[in-house]
Amino acid sequence: MAVYLICVLCLFFCVNSLKYDPTWDSLDTRPLPQWFDEAKLGIFIHWGVFSVPSFSTGAWLWWAWKGKPLPAIVDFMRKNYRPDFTYAEFAPMFTTEFFYPEEWAEIFQNSGARYVVLVSKHHEGYTNWPSKYSFNWNSKATGPNRDLVGELSAAIRAKTQMRFGLYHSLFEWFNPTYLDDKNSEFKKRNFVRTKAMPELYELVNTYKPEVIWSDGDWEATDAYWNSTNFLAWLYNESPVKDTVVTNDRWGSGIPCKHGGFFTCTDRYNPGKLQTHKWENAMTIDKYAWAYRRNARFEDFLTIEDLLSQLVSTVSCGGNMLMNVGPTKYGKISPIYEERLRQMGQWLRVNGDGIYGTRPWVHQNDTVVKDVWYTLKKAVTATDVFAILLEWPDNNLLKLGAPIPSEDTTVSMLGYPEMFTWTAGTGGKGINIQIPHMSVKTMPCQWAWTFKMTGLQN
Amino acid sequence: MAVYLICVLCLFFCVNSLKYDPTWDSLDTRPLPQWFDEAKLGIFIHWGVFSVPSFSTGAWLWWAWKGKPLPAIVDFMRKNYRPDFTYAEFAPMFTTEFFYPEEWAEIFQNSGARYVVLVSKHHEGYTNWPSKYSFNWNSKATGPNRDLVGELSAAIRAKTQMRFGLYHSLFEWFNPTYLDDKNSEFKKRNFVRTKAMPELYELVNTYKPEVIWSDGDWEATDAYWNSTNFLAWLYNESPVKDTVVTNDRWGSGIPCKHGGFFTCTDRYNPGKLQTHKWENAMTIDKYAWAYRRNARFEDFLTIEDLLSQLVSTVSCGGNMLMNVGPTKYGKISPIYEERLRQMGQWLRVNGDGIYGTRPWVHQNDTVVKDVWYTLKKAVTATDVFAILLEWPDNNLLKLGAPIPSEDTTVSMLGYPEMFTWTAGTGGKGINIQIPHMSVKTMPCQWAWTFKMTGLQN
Amino acid sequence: MAVYLICVLCLFFCVNSLKYDPTWDSLDTRPLPQWFDEAKLGIFIHWGVFSVPSFSTGAWLWWAWKGKPLPAIVDFMRKNYRPDFTYAEFAPMFTTEFFYPEEWAEIFQNSGARYVVLVSKHHEGYTNWPSKYSFNWNSKATGPNRDLVGELSAAIRAKTQMRFGLYHSLFEWFNPTYLDDKNSEFKKRNFVRTKAMPELYELVNTYKPEVIWSDGDWEATDAYWNSTNFLAWLYNESPVKDTVVTNDRWGSGIPCKHGGFFTCTDRYNPGKLQTHKWENAMTIDKYAWAYRRNARFEDFLTIEDLLSQLVSTVSCGGNMLMNVGPTKYGKISPIYEERLRQMGQWLRVNGDGIYGTRPWVHQNDTVVKDVWYTLKKAVTATDVFAILLEWPDNNLLKLGAPIPSEDTTVSMLGYPEMFTWTAGTGGKGINIQIPHMSVKTMPCQWAWTFKMTGLQN
Amino acid sequence: MAVYLICVLCLFFCVNSLKYDPTWDSLDTRPLPQWFDEAKLGIFIHWGVFSVPSFSTGAWLWWAWKGKPLPAIVDFMRKNYRPDFTYAEFAPMFTTEFFYPEEWAEIFQNSGARYVVLVSKHHEGYTNWPSKYSFNWNSKATGPNRDLVGELSAAIRAKTQMRFGLYHSLFEWFNPTYLDDKNSEFKKRNFVRTKAMPELYELVNTYKPEVIWSDGDWEATDAYWNSTNFLAWLYNESPVKDTVVTNDRWGSGIPCKHGGFFTCTDRYNPGKLQTHKWENAMTIDKYAWAYRRNARFEDFLTIEDLLSQLVSTVSCGGNMLMNVGPTKYGKISPIYEERLRQMGQWLRVNGDGIYGTRPWVHQNDTVVKDVWYTLKKAVTATDVFAILLEWPDNNLLKLGAPIPSEDTTVSMLGYPEMFTWTAGTGGKGINIQIPHMSVKTMPCQWAWTFKMTGLQN
Repeated sequence: MAVYLICVLCLFFCVNSLKYDPTWDSLDTRPLPQWFDEAKLGIFIHWGVFSVPSFSTGAWLWWAWKGKPLPAIVDFMRKNYRPDFTYAEFAPMFTTEFFYPEEWAEIFQNSGARYVVLVSKHHEGYTNWPSKYSFNWNSKATGPNRDLVGELSAAIRAKTQMRFGLYHSLFEWFNPTYLDDKNSEFKKRNFVRTKAMPELYELVNTYKPEVIWSDGDWEATDAYWNSTNFLAWLYNESPVKDTVVTNDRWGSGIPCKHGGFFTCTDRYNPGKLQTHKWENAMTIDKYAWAYRRNARFEDFLTIEDLLSQLVSTVSCGGNMLMNVGPTKYGKISPIYEERLRQMGQWLRVNGDGIYGTRPWVHQNDTVVKDVWYTLKKAVTATDVFAILLEWPDNNLLKLGAPIPSEDTTVSMLGYPEMFTWTAGTGGKGINIQIPHMSVKTMPCQWAWTFKMTGLQN
Repeated sequence: MAVYLICVLCLFFCVNSLKYDPTWDSLDTRPLPQWFDEAKLGIFIHWGVFSVPSFSTGAWLWWAWKGKPLPAIVDFMRKNYRPDFTYAEFAPMFTTEFFYPEEWAEIFQNSGARYVVLVSKHHEGYTNWPSKYSFNWNSKATGPNRDLVGELSAAIRAKTQMRFGLYHSLFEWFNPTYLDDKNSEFKKRNFVRTKAMPELYELVNTYKPEVIWSDGDWEATDAYWNSTNFLAWLYNESPVKDTVVTNDRWGSGIPCKHGGFFTCTDRYNPGKLQTHKWENAMTIDKYAWAYRRNARFEDFLTIEDLLSQLVSTVSCGGNMLMNVGPTKYGKISPIYEERLRQMGQWLRVNGDGIYGTRPWVHQNDTVVKDVWYTLKKAVTATDVFAILLEWPDNNLLKLGAPIPSEDTTVSMLGYPEMFTWTAGTGGKGINIQIPHMSVKTMPCQWAWTFKMTGLQN
Repeated sequence: MAVYLICVLCLFFCVNSLKYDPTWDSLDTRPLPQWFDEAKLGIFIHWGVFSVPSFSTGAWLWWAWKGKPLPAIVDFMRKNYRPDFTYAEFAPMFTTEFFYPEEWAEIFQNSGARYVVLVSKHHEGYTNWPSKYSFNWNSKATGPNRDLVGELSAAIRAKTQMRFGLYHSLFEWFNPTYLDDKNSEFKKRNFVRTKAMPELYELVNTYKPEVIWSDGDWEATDAYWNSTNFLAWLYNESPVKDTVVTNDRWGSGIPCKHGGFFTCTDRYNPGKLQTHKWENAMTIDKYAWAYRRNARFEDFLTIEDLLSQLVSTVSCGGNMLMNVGPTKYGKISPIYEERLRQMGQWLRVNGDGIYGTRPWVHQNDTVVKDVWYTLKKAVTATDVFAILLEWPDNNLLKLGAPIPSEDTTVSMLGYPEMFTWTAGTGGKGINIQIPHMSVKTMPCQWAWTFKMTGLQN
Repeated sequence: MAVYLICVLCLFFCVNSLKYDPTWDSLDTRPLPQWFDEAKLGIFIHWGVFSVPSFSTGAWLWWAWKGKPLPAIVDFMRKNYRPDFTYAEFAPMFTTEFFYPEEWAEIFQNSGARYVVLVSKHHEGYTNWPSKYSFNWNSKATGPNRDLVGELSAAIRAKTQMRFGLYHSLFEWFNPTYLDDKNSEFKKRNFVRTKAMPELYELVNTYKPEVIWSDGDWEATDAYWNSTNFLAWLYNESPVKDTVVTNDRWGSGIPCKHGGFFTCTDRYNPGKLQTHKWENAMTIDKYAWAYRRNARFEDFLTIEDLLSQLVSTVSCGGNMLMNVGPTKYGKISPIYEERLRQMGQWLRVNGDGIYGTRPWVHQNDTVVKDVWYTLKKAVTATDVFAILLEWPDNNLLKLGAPIPSEDTTVSMLGYPEMFTWTAGTGGKGINIQIPHMSVKTMPCQWAWTFKMTGLQN
């Protein structure tokens, strides 16, 4: 009897904890934890030794200097450093003296984002935590003399409700162990066994990230990377197995096909509804992921640009992961902070049309340009949100997609009164008369959310 | 006969070129060159070795460390530098690798400013040009290895119509020659003879600045500083004698009393009409003149704050000198660039109410808060401009100060049509009905200029 | 038949190339290549990142700072570096700009040494070659931007007849992979598999060192280190299998018991005949292996001290490995160069009594202090050398050990004439009358070699 | 009566304190303070910012880089520093962390020197004390953060009987004030008035040096330099007026003609008796005054070379000023320390023939090469010393110059017994039979002093 009980318990345990096999067929069946789809907006943070030169190609400077040289980078290095200077010698200048993680937490929280994804290690291989697998090439051993990952994760959790996630590059451009594997056409797998995988496990066990944002996968297969085994462990046994989400960069041929949410390519924004949860990982600085000291004002997306990205992304089922590049001294440059706070200001008024929404049957309007739809189903009613990026001429908004019913009501988020409307020709479409609003009485300045209830579609 | 002719010529020359005696009575009679009053907006640039620590007290870091120590500064230095580190050792890190003077010229030009005032030397004594009087403590000898003053002045003149001026600190906190003079209760004048004056003459003769913005005068009298002699030379004989303007910081007791335009105190903005031309030297970063790496977004004035400063200043007869703190690597931080471009954007619409205007009989409105007036007299008509900082409720603007006539017309800069109006009670004041403007049709977002012609006052 | 032949060949090949099993029983049977015993004098070179602080504990600074802190070291670091400075940050200052390997080769050659042993990696883990197993912690990646091992080995081989060898530390104080193995009580062997062994193989295959001077073994057993397997490969298959010599530091309990020559402890000099070939690894600077910037003149052994070490070592069957600590800028400090050239000067006169000699039946003299004996057997005769460290009173040298025969002749190396002698009491011992030599006619200044042929013993 | 008394006192005071006029005629009448001639040996110390690059041309690096470029120097700078590196940027690396002035004092004392001359400021203009006339280009403001002159002078005086003196360069290669004077063909004298002279007075008043070793005079006349006025003050009124000695480098045409002791040229050693007290300022490193990191052992004079210089110098009436170049970290390199201690070892035996001696009628011997004579007159007897640099063949020394009398005795300093001698042919010359001395019984190794009393000449 006791044996029987143990067997049942064991079976239960096995079934429960080892739900997933290390195959894509199995792993792809895992439902994405709900929080992720509801969150809509995350903050991406690119920070590392590349934040020291902080120039031009940003996080890719080393590659553009020594991998596939760009004349502008080679020239920059020649002009500003001694001839024998090496990339590793930037590390001591990664000082982070103004890094106050609670300050970052407050800024990100007030941007309206619901999760944060920090680069734990980029292609340069430098780890922003005291990795046991990256001797003297980590943030405790040279430069900050701090556990950057640990400090930020603690602050995010102590001071906000945001989820904390980690970016991790599988490959490292110049790590000789990796290059040796690559030279063997990836028959050798020393790099995966001694570096990539141990670090991923160490990260998950130590910092319990709820996003694993994998990258740097493209030169080798998922088999080389051991991806499915890692994910099976992550989903079955890891300390974050119930809430963690991952992306799709787990080997050549995998992105946009397998994994958690799909990121496909950088700044992926397909503009139409997708069948799989996806994420638009994009940058506030148009040209780079890392802080660039030489960035001009015009290189930064305006808040209008950012909102356009956000609403088109959310409307088509995506999340937006908005990238910030902090300085080597640990401060978020004010231009970034401004964009983050503007986004937060907008979301405090319009968040109801973003957070927790789903795509509607239409994403764009059939008639009016620059309108994107979202949907929210509540117990008692269903709201359709039309988010305008451009104010309509004469305050008259003639939407083509909604089919109003008699019960239809129309309002604007942040505005106290209902709007009058009439049905379009043949009952299709809706013509909304917007009352006069001065610059002073408008609920916001850059994009406006119309809420329609009781539509027929 | 020849002798007679020579005498006449000589007399003419003397009278002509040596108009001013080295006394305030005489110097104060010099009319301010007209360009200055018409310009209204200038750019102030604080850049130097202090841009390296770039922390907290900004340009005053050395003083706050070693002069009158502030714990926060002492602590910062202790935490981030070796115990024997000295202030002079910051200089090699003043690298300016991204300083492209033509880029600065373009940004300043597009801010709508009409003149630029660069710090040539601050209280630290480091000269941003290869001064012949500052051996190994200048921008050619340590740090940039460049003539920063020369490069910027050349670019401003080649690429813009702006006037180029220079800030110059008379005293130097820690220069032992100065301290020796000070110890003698300024009976000795070695510092003035060998450093302060030679440098001023060198600056004027080399770079021909059209603004001399003196500072650092307060510990000693104008007699010690040799101020009136320098000014007599500047006005009578210097290469810029016809167009140069100066301020009032020429010795203790002098500011707000003698000299060219009055600056009185930092961020001087009296809020009422002044009888003497003045300037509001203020900072985009509320707390510092130099770039502060630790500045937060909220530390920067918004464009609304800046416009409020500008219109209140111009309305009361002042110019605004808006300060920018570039980074040690020579780039203007994007947050500064954004404010400068916003200002330019506003002035391209509203400049007619700013440039070349004069104070009106009223500065504020008697009824409506946040309205400031300016006046422009043309050959055929006189325009009064009322600049609103806050949009009126219900689009109805009831100004108390103007007394309309039958011929009065009212319009808004940047808006194509005339507005209807009615006279106020008893013919005093004017009630302007503003047409509905959406966010899309408004000429600008932050402050609005109403132009009234044909007023009785 | 063909098959048979192949089998025989194969067998022959196996037997021939795989002579040694990976057991001490087998490995210890390998005869030491003859060159080593004949060489007598080698140069040891301690050079690495520790050459940057170059202070006090020398190569052990990191340990004395962060491992088992010494107040003097902690204090030094605190006084001279910023609070967050890390050891890895010394590496960029390891500049080696004056390292001309051919210059070193010439100096070592002229010291009379017959082999050179360079530290390829010390306990700090920094590799003086571009190791494929030490990402960003090697001499190509940070600091010199050079292959120090490669450059020196090439120069030694191109310019001298010396043998080239390498020191290699098995353990690395702060390598987390090692510490992890250690924490497991050496049940884990990741460090050995991914770092220690791959690097040793890489070193041997790349640089073909003829000495492997192992160190840093003491915390773990030879089983953990994989020592016997490595040595079996080294002796059976490596490119240096016929000429390589190794020492005995291959695991706790191994030194002075197994391996090639015995080093036992640092500065091992037992003072009596040993049954196994041994080496006295000692330092010209009494107190450290690395160059110490704070070394005083009195800290350096005099040439008399060095000769005393050499002759006592050789007399008892040892070799002397004399250590030099070059500077971080790649120059051998002149005090070291002086000692090396003095040694060479002495050996050019007295080398016949050193190189290729063997211990005699007596090592010390029974009567006279500071006399050491060596023996050289030639085809026709046998020479016994008595090397005096102190000049005898009255030019009369009464040796107790030699038993002269009628045919005995006595001379001094470097002196043109034979000396007269008489037999000691009872035919035992020999009394040598040294002719008067002035300071000008003496063959050397510091130690004198008497050559006796035709002795009875 | 009182008036008369005052007059007398005043007259007395004037006569007493203002003995010397500011003319060479007057200044040259001043007798050289006796201590200087008796001292014979001094230590020269070249230390400054040039000790940082510490390369090749030593103290002249800046000039050889930017003044009159040498390819080797230009190349060195290009290879090892960033393109915009400036000379002033070496200063922060002048760290002096191992400078313990009492350690220097002990070493110099034990070299047998009787005075020390420290470079207070070389041609680079950097002052090794916190000069009030060298803002931010002095040892307190950048680099050591210490008063090097003050610390060494205090230690020398507290711990030794040596006199302390200072070297001072009148000109500064790149000081713009100097260059401006030079451009005016020295009609302007701003540099002298504001820099050279104030610093000299400051040095004398602050540190009370008993040697003023002037240099850098050659481009301008003594009139330009104000030399005679300074010297009149120095001799009449300064705090060291009674004991100070100066050299002759006080303007073009002055060296070897006027001033205190004559230095004429660097490494001046005329080889025959001079009519005026002179000094041989020479260097232990043959090629440079500053420490050169790239110096080889063979670049350093041997103790034999140094003794040859010393005895030839003293014999002809000169003093020897032996130069040491300390490292940038404040340590005296062991090779220098060795030479200093060897010199001290020799002087402890042979000092009686050096200190307090005067030239004899002969300087060299007429017969034997490498013999130099000195003379010492005591109350009761007169000693003539013959110092041999080469040991005589057969221990027989046949001197040609001395004329022995019946009472003549001959001995060797450091040897306990008298020597036998015979008169040369015709009573001229003396043949000394030196007893056999082994290396062990010789009083010293490198040069031998024969003392002859009771000579006829």
